[in-house]
Amino acid sequence: MKFCSQCGGLLTIQVPAGDSRPRHVCAHCGEIHYRNPKLVVGCVATWEERILLCRRAIEPRHGFWTLPAGFMENGESTAEAATRETLEEACARIEIEALSSLISVPHYDQVHLFYRARLLDPHIGAGPESLESVLIREEDIPWSEIAFQSVSFALRAFLADRAAGSFGLHEHSLPPPATT
Amino acid sequence: MKFCSQCGGLLTIQVPAGDSRPRHVCAHCGEIHYRNPKLVVGCVATWEERILLCRRAIEPRHGFWTLPAGFMENGESTAEAATRETLEEACARIEIEALSSLISVPHYDQVHLFYRARLLDPHIGAGPESLESVLIREEDIPWSEIAFQSVSFALRAFLADRAAGSFGLHEHSLPPPATT
Ligand SMILES: [Zn+2]
Ligand SMILES: [Zn+2]
Repeated sequence: MKFCSQCGGLLTIQVPAGDSRPRHVCAHCGEIHYRNPKLVVGCVATWEERILLCRRAIEPRHGFWTLPAGFMENGESTAEAATRETLEEACARIEIEALSSLISVPHYDQVHLFYRARLLDPHIGAGPESLESVLIREEDIPWSEIAFQSVSFALRAFLADRAAGSFGLHEHSLPPPATT
Repeated sequence: MKFCSQCGGLLTIQVPAGDSRPRHVCAHCGEIHYRNPKLVVGCVATWEERILLCRRAIEPRHGFWTLPAGFMENGESTAEAATRETLEEACARIEIEALSSLISVPHYDQVHLFYRARLLDPHIGAGPESLESVLIREEDIPWSEIAFQSVSFALRAFLADRAAGSFGLHEHSLPPPATT
């Protein structure tokens, strides 16, 4: 971020009056440009005992497996975002049940939400961002090929709840990646 | 949003290849500038039976009552955001218990999260964005002077749970304001 999106002027980094953090402030018009975390919303969708997974056709983590999920858009609710992403990535129609996982990812400035959901029918497919979609049994989940830590967390939380016969909200904050 | 924050070039509105929505795209460098919902995070914090409310010293809704809450910052978790906002607005130290309300506000491109929390001590104050803070009994809550619909929802959800003796997550999507 170098230029003001309002006037095209050069941005400076300074702490505005009454604030405690450095911000991008326009040297020309004074506009303060805040940067805030983004929401990624998806779901753990099931048909009978099987779980919907998609294999990624895009970077990052091309070829790895994920739950359908993506950046929430303006003008929608979190449940609508999960429903839309599932349709776009897995061509699958779902009914949202309840929020299952809330995972903060501070080092990427993101918050990930995963809903528990029920497929309305077993027809699935591969949207433009997926190589393939599958309905997979718990014992066949390719744990070593899951794309993201938050997806593994959401899957394990769902499976633990299902085994216990009681569903709740699971919260987690991911630590930064290990630097070796 | 008129100018590219990367190169200062003029932005155009177009649907990028492989996308289905109009975006702000730079005519000069091609950068796509996405706009995404913002997270507002706060808490329903209690000391014994009383609830922490703040009276707003800033617009919108100057002079009205709110739960401590504000925009989540990059680099923090949702629970850290709630803790920070409560310290900033009410000079109050809390221990987070669990997520209590998740409220989508599609017409303002926001998602509001309210945690249930426990004050660590009864010392409260007024931060720069508050005229005053109070610890108030349920029967004294000024319902007609609550600043935002999401705050009323979160308060009522918490009070209903407390009355029932069982706490859960309450989800809601606010309808657009009535136009009369
Ligand atoms: Zn400017
Ligand atoms: Zn540009």
